[in-house]
Amino acid sequence: VTVGDLTERDLIARIQAKLPPAPSWLPVGIGDDAAVVEPERNRLEVLSVDTIVEGVHFDRAFCPPDVVGHRALAVNLSDLAAMGAAPRAALLAMALPAALEVDDFDGIVSGLVTLAAEHRLHVVGGNLTRSPGPLVIDVTVTGTVKRRQVLTRGGAKPGDAVYVSGAIGAARAGLALLQMTADSRLTTDDSRLTTDDSRLTTDDRRLTTAYLRPSPRVRLGVLLARNRAAGACIDLSDGLSDGVHRIAEASRVGIAVDADALPIPAAARAAFASRGCDPVAEALAGGDDYELLFTVRRRRTRSAVAAAKLAGIPITRIGECTERGGVVLRRAGAETPLSSMGYSHFGAASPA
Amino acid sequence: VTVGDLTERDLIARIQAKLPPAPSWLPVGIGDDAAVVEPERNRLEVLSVDTIVEGVHFDRAFCPPDVVGHRALAVNLSDLAAMGAAPRAALLAMALPAALEVDDFDGIVSGLVTLAAEHRLHVVGGNLTRSPGPLVIDVTVTGTVKRRQVLTRGGAKPGDAVYVSGAIGAARAGLALLQMTADSRLTTDDSRLTTDDSRLTTDDRRLTTAYLRPSPRVRLGVLLARNRAAGACIDLSDGLSDGVHRIAEASRVGIAVDADALPIPAAARAAFASRGCDPVAEALAGGDDYELLFTVRRRRTRSAVAAAKLAGIPITRIGECTERGGVVLRRAGAETPLSSMGYSHFGAASPA
Repeated sequence: VTVGDLTERDLIARIQAKLPPAPSWLPVGIGDDAAVVEPERNRLEVLSVDTIVEGVHFDRAFCPPDVVGHRALAVNLSDLAAMGAAPRAALLAMALPAALEVDDFDGIVSGLVTLAAEHRLHVVGGNLTRSPGPLVIDVTVTGTVKRRQVLTRGGAKPGDAVYVSGAIGAARAGLALLQMTADSRLTTDDSRLTTDDSRLTTDDRRLTTAYLRPSPRVRLGVLLARNRAAGACIDLSDGLSDGVHRIAEASRVGIAVDADALPIPAAARAAFASRGCDPVAEALAGGDDYELLFTVRRRRTRSAVAAAKLAGIPITRIGECTERGGVVLRRAGAETPLSSMGYSHFGAASPA
Repeated sequence: VTVGDLTERDLIARIQAKLPPAPSWLPVGIGDDAAVVEPERNRLEVLSVDTIVEGVHFDRAFCPPDVVGHRALAVNLSDLAAMGAAPRAALLAMALPAALEVDDFDGIVSGLVTLAAEHRLHVVGGNLTRSPGPLVIDVTVTGTVKRRQVLTRGGAKPGDAVYVSGAIGAARAGLALLQMTADSRLTTDDSRLTTDDSRLTTDDRRLTTAYLRPSPRVRLGVLLARNRAAGACIDLSDGLSDGVHRIAEASRVGIAVDADALPIPAAARAAFASRGCDPVAEALAGGDDYELLFTVRRRRTRSAVAAAKLAGIPITRIGECTERGGVVLRRAGAETPLSSMGYSHFGAASPA
């Protein structure tokens, strides 16, 4: 059965069946012209939208449907996390090729709704339409944060330490593995790959999971905002180099990054090295790490460490903000200018 | 120059250049991980998203770029109007084919931003990405309304009068004209059609404008909500029959529609009749009329008339809500069941 066999109403009913009961702040949910929510008092509302397009942001050859749904929402949750906002409502808009299997449609919705439930985010509405081309998923999220606690990219000051959460480079290494495996598989066998491909080692699987099922750092972002540990904050969806440059520009500071301090997992280092690539360069350029990059004043160091402990996410000091402008990489005792590498031509292929 | 020659940043800068200064309720606008807005106190927030896809919802053969942008936003504003909400913020997400001309990109943004300014809606953020297929535009809007004033589809009661704003059928007649003109033009000349095609009469142009540049009834919706004139309300994006059915279902009432009362413009009647089509059937089925369909209690009739006068939009009583279920069409002294006609198969071509 493909989605072309069903009506929009049928498809909406399949989504509704997966949703928990409406929370009290949702006077009107799915089924009217628009959703109506009641924001909390004295809280700002944070809005974000992200689109993922088949063939650009995901490849159904190695992304199972629930992974597609998970990733479509994770991108947005990561943006809320970077603002220090607690997730609240989501709108799900999809342009669907008529030939899409209904099972795959259900799988996409399941992946998204499962991740939403983990973060107490409620799907309050959306839009379904046909696509004569690729599958396009567009998710809008809203979140709330107190006015004085919003984390922006512009709050860094010279002397601040620069931290990153979790690990970087794992998603990029995982994507490369998935692409290689899919390529070799497709030449011999037409069946769809999944992550439980038996030829992947445990280390490999850790890398592919980092790409397929990223965990947006929502709790860490909220805690860093609440205890005012972070000055500036951004998520790394477009890569570490890009993130460092954007904070430096928005905050008008320089940033020096220590190559040796970067938390690149051993498995990712090995994977990059086996292909003759420099692990540091790869980890700096790689997108798809839904980690947070943030700056911390000297006297707020303990608060940052406390937030990380409470969130259960390791954080690593990878550099510092400097008075003089420019972004540099410190490596083997030398400082070299670091390019942003995130500013790819719009038409060119990019990892995210 | 095509969008493939520019970076995402270049394109965002072109959008920002068209925006008015940020209002006071927008602490963080375009350029951070997410936008931050400050909703008013004691007001509910209304959220809506709509996607338009090239080849499904619009045809660039006869929709100039500013029309595409206008329509992408009009769909959403119409949803806010149907809830009685005053527009506030919009997020603009686009999936762009690399070969799209930058002039066309600019034109789309202009059409959208111009309509936004007319309704005091501010573009606060969005997302741009590549599309390997059609142009996809996804607009999310937020609006505000007082809790007791929200208009839903569920507020109709037996005995209420049923009203429609403006005219119906004009957009459908206009679309048919545009398609015919485009077909005949394309066989002789490859150049792009615009609405000022000299072969269209004044009447024709009124119809094509109804399709190309619909005016969402935002002010009327807000006024109907404020003076509590309307019980139930819906917008007619999916057609009058569909709207009547949806109010009847959500409110658990029957609705009788008087065929002779339908405000179908003479030019549209003539256009339908010249193709051997029944004007009433066409107007009932036709989508793309961004009018409001609403119900009014007997004692609130004056309030509804006052709201319409203040908004400067004619309203027409086209029927009434009945105790017994079912939707019927009264015509030439007979009552016949009216099908919803809006529930087309998801894969099938539909007017909107």
